[in-house]
Amino acid sequence: MTALTLNPRDIDFLLYELLKVEELTERPPFADHSRETFAAAIETARKIAEERFLPLYRETDLHEPRIVEGRVEMIPSVKEALDAAAEAGFIAAHKPFEQGGMQLPWTVAQAALAHFKAANIGIFAYHFLTIAAANMIDAFGNEAQKARYLEALLAGRFYGTMALTEPQAGSSLADIRTSAEPTEAGHYLLKGSKIFISCGAHELSENIVHLVLARIKGAPPGVKGISLFIVPRYRMEGDGRAGNDITLTGLIHKMGYRGTTSTMLQFGEKGDCRGELLGEPHMGLSYMFRMMNEARIGVGLGAACLGYVGYLNALDYARNRPQGRKPDAKDPSRPPIAIIEHADVKRMLLAQKAYVEGALALCFYAARLIDEQRSAPEVEARRKAGLLLELLTPIVKAWPSDYGAEANSLAIQVLGGYGYTRDYPVEQHYRDNRLNAIHEGTNGIQAIDLLGRKVAMADGEALTLFAQEITRSAEAAKAQVGLGGYADDLTRALGAIRETTDALLAARQRGAIELSLANASLYLDALGHLTVAWLWLRQALVAREGEASARPEDADFYRGKLQACRYFFRFELPKIEQHCRILSALDGTTMEMQDAWF
Amino acid sequence: MTALTLNPRDIDFLLYELLKVEELTERPPFADHSRETFAAAIETARKIAEERFLPLYRETDLHEPRIVEGRVEMIPSVKEALDAAAEAGFIAAHKPFEQGGMQLPWTVAQAALAHFKAANIGIFAYHFLTIAAANMIDAFGNEAQKARYLEALLAGRFYGTMALTEPQAGSSLADIRTSAEPTEAGHYLLKGSKIFISCGAHELSENIVHLVLARIKGAPPGVKGISLFIVPRYRMEGDGRAGNDITLTGLIHKMGYRGTTSTMLQFGEKGDCRGELLGEPHMGLSYMFRMMNEARIGVGLGAACLGYVGYLNALDYARNRPQGRKPDAKDPSRPPIAIIEHADVKRMLLAQKAYVEGALALCFYAARLIDEQRSAPEVEARRKAGLLLELLTPIVKAWPSDYGAEANSLAIQVLGGYGYTRDYPVEQHYRDNRLNAIHEGTNGIQAIDLLGRKVAMADGEALTLFAQEITRSAEAAKAQVGLGGYADDLTRALGAIRETTDALLAARQRGAIELSLANASLYLDALGHLTVAWLWLRQALVAREGEASARPEDADFYRGKLQACRYFFRFELPKIEQHCRILSALDGTTMEMQDAWF
Repeated sequence: MTALTLNPRDIDFLLYELLKVEELTERPPFADHSRETFAAAIETARKIAEERFLPLYRETDLHEPRIVEGRVEMIPSVKEALDAAAEAGFIAAHKPFEQGGMQLPWTVAQAALAHFKAANIGIFAYHFLTIAAANMIDAFGNEAQKARYLEALLAGRFYGTMALTEPQAGSSLADIRTSAEPTEAGHYLLKGSKIFISCGAHELSENIVHLVLARIKGAPPGVKGISLFIVPRYRMEGDGRAGNDITLTGLIHKMGYRGTTSTMLQFGEKGDCRGELLGEPHMGLSYMFRMMNEARIGVGLGAACLGYVGYLNALDYARNRPQGRKPDAKDPSRPPIAIIEHADVKRMLLAQKAYVEGALALCFYAARLIDEQRSAPEVEARRKAGLLLELLTPIVKAWPSDYGAEANSLAIQVLGGYGYTRDYPVEQHYRDNRLNAIHEGTNGIQAIDLLGRKVAMADGEALTLFAQEITRSAEAAKAQVGLGGYADDLTRALGAIRETTDALLAARQRGAIELSLANASLYLDALGHLTVAWLWLRQALVAREGEASARPEDADFYRGKLQACRYFFRFELPKIEQHCRILSALDGTTMEMQDAWF
Repeated sequence: MTALTLNPRDIDFLLYELLKVEELTERPPFADHSRETFAAAIETARKIAEERFLPLYRETDLHEPRIVEGRVEMIPSVKEALDAAAEAGFIAAHKPFEQGGMQLPWTVAQAALAHFKAANIGIFAYHFLTIAAANMIDAFGNEAQKARYLEALLAGRFYGTMALTEPQAGSSLADIRTSAEPTEAGHYLLKGSKIFISCGAHELSENIVHLVLARIKGAPPGVKGISLFIVPRYRMEGDGRAGNDITLTGLIHKMGYRGTTSTMLQFGEKGDCRGELLGEPHMGLSYMFRMMNEARIGVGLGAACLGYVGYLNALDYARNRPQGRKPDAKDPSRPPIAIIEHADVKRMLLAQKAYVEGALALCFYAARLIDEQRSAPEVEARRKAGLLLELLTPIVKAWPSDYGAEANSLAIQVLGGYGYTRDYPVEQHYRDNRLNAIHEGTNGIQAIDLLGRKVAMADGEALTLFAQEITRSAEAAKAQVGLGGYADDLTRALGAIRETTDALLAARQRGAIELSLANASLYLDALGHLTVAWLWLRQALVAREGEASARPEDADFYRGKLQACRYFFRFELPKIEQHCRILSALDGTTMEMQDAWF
């Protein structure tokens, strides 16, 4: 039986066997929970995802939002699906009971939400941004702001956005120009243009809460002069339906992700767009990074889920499509075999499995770090989890978006000509997933964040901690039959990365800043591969233990995990070595290329 | 100044400096030609491509063909563009003067046609298949068939198709079921369903000439019982407009390539679909392979051109988009720099350049082999060119479709959020190019053709010949300042491939057929990389020579070629080593994976 979103057996494996999420129930915030309540929440999400979100997947692609008389129109079933998820409580799944939440660990909440992403990522974006906006107001808002916005966001009556990007600035937030002028009444008057604002206009919720980056008049230039504002579509006064001078100047028509409105917004065209300062002035970017980090991990999870659902579709097709014969048994009078029997199809499916289950493990591991950071009994454990999370965030964003998209391409290839048609969803997964390497900071920006900031922060402590984690797993693997070779490979790869990191940081110390960062994308890819290889080895360890005592169907599942680990170590891991050679040599080929030579 | 299709300076470089196409004018068939006549033909094609084909690129994507009252309807400007190219003589560009052709060398004709592919590959498909069908009838048809069809095809009054694929058989041609029953009148009655027939129905030409694979009743099973038929849409009798019982049962809706109708056709629903046997019975597949080989090289060229035009768009954008600052000069009061100045953007552009100029060199080199095969003065030279061409055909098809698509993905990444919108063409290039790894034999099938058949044919002579070519270039490079290191790298990579090949062929000898082919896709990728690296070294040799005496703008061009060569050798070539390690070890990871373990 093929699941249409994510494989339930794998979700259980990752949560309970790999990441030991059940242990969280021993901690006070989750004491009312048990594996059963976790399973019930996930099962509910799966059901809503498969029954309400998935059936709209093609429809939301074919009928993208459009502007009719100044308002965004979309197919009505989108609101019904989103309302169903909101009513079941999933916007507040991770929030405490007293806020109307389910008080689930972040990891479990993410595992539940992953089903919406796998089923219809384009429409889930409305909730995704709402959750992120609610978390921001909860973290940095004053009591009045919380009263005005928080409950409504968590209940899905209001939806949120993050309004960062401006046409002239793109990824360069230092160049943001939107201005905010303080008034005697206490609010600010905002003025400026924003672009690529996902979920920036729609009729799905009573109000839209924009979190807008802008400069207070007289603020210092660059990123240190940016503040964050709550700017509602409708003013929260009187009947709460007075417009707030935000003009929808256009919709962006995309290759995919068409369920999500992508908008161009003009704030304060008539000089009367009112915003409330969130937190302190000039702290906007540092606040926004909280939202952005959450969003980056969310983008990675979405990319993993899109890759995953594509893989399940390809697997289903390969099992049911008879075609051709083995190269050593070509008798045309014999019936053709299912294409899953062809070695090259197995290769493509195994690569997909290695990518998408690896990516999902990575995203859940990051979620588990968030739980650790928030609820570990020891302060030191919390601090370390936070460091690891900071280090890995660019990888969690970028690696699944690169390899999830690669998995989606392989899924098309498995289906062949059929995969290229709009009769199957795999082409849409491919189009949808192409966005994930771009939004919330392009993968190139993630690479510079990783190499330029994260690996050196706290005197390199995060990388050291991570190396200790890897070494611990390698030690455990050495004691297991058949896993010792992987332990050696992983240890060697870790050594290569550490040497490479030292060489790059030394170059930066010498002042070769640009050169040391020139091939940061390769560094990100290498450290990403190391991370996923480590998670595959950890999965193999669990599978090896489980194999002996398992029921037959579980034994097959564990063998699949072991085979995917083998694939990753043999076919993928060697890439690290190649990247490290280029990086350690401080290769200047790319940086030295000149405009005129192209 | 950015060209919108292909870079004219590069076309000249590849044709005249790298492949010495001017020397062909010394051969009798091309004695009336000169570099000037070649240039005039290419310039005319470029002009029509940029003025007639390119402006329709988005429009043909947005308004895909649809069925209205049983007929295919599309935007009228498609016919105007195609007619302009036909009237200028490009369907017959490679045909002798006496057939109304331009009698151009195949290489020059392909260089001209490449502009149509770069400008609008979806609509060029009509001519592409017409050229291929005309070549088939010219090669295998009898005089009556030539009289009926050839001139009309070459003039663009009739258009052609290749009708191979059937719903139940897919890539497995052995399982074709369409039947052909001989009649006393001499024709055959065809019956059967075909799917994915590109250009199978339209109103662009007076008639459509389908070349259909079918089994004559009583034919042996499998590929040895397949014959080839000419089956016109309208019968060539009376007024030539009588229907021939071919029913359009549906259009296929694709992710891209939407200018091309992709059809489902039913032949002989009423028992009255008449076809003429082309050539001898049961020889259909061997004939069709002629068409298919031509089509495979054409697919490679199309993929290279799509990658190329995407690269030019990304380059243009990167030069004109100011955003951000260098990592060592972040003062926000200074104006932002053009993104082409960022090392990571240079990396992405340089990778694209290395892929697409490499792919185009590969396709033109294959075309040059066709000219050599047809017109070399020495019989032995012709034979050798034919062998090399056979060896390289799967690479020419697959490598550009893999790396051209990768280039298209990088082009999107350079444009960032804008690249993901439908306001720029790069997302369409990406969608269009995804087909090229699938049609005319998936890349997996190319891999098995290469490793299972081509490298061992004629006792391995083709691979030996190819190795000699590579060694010759390496020797030449050793004598050039700065190229000696590449010569060593290439020689080492060649050695690795030869050892790997020997190991794989020995395994096959031992009977491990399936295992020896299990990772054929990696072999294809490795030999493809070797081939393109070799072509980059040859380009570097020419550039090094040209550099000294060049005008300043030429000097920049040559430096770009040298830098792209450097990129390919440092960043790409090492992949070969990694693949060869897996292949030589006869790694069974993929083949041993079991259905139940997924």
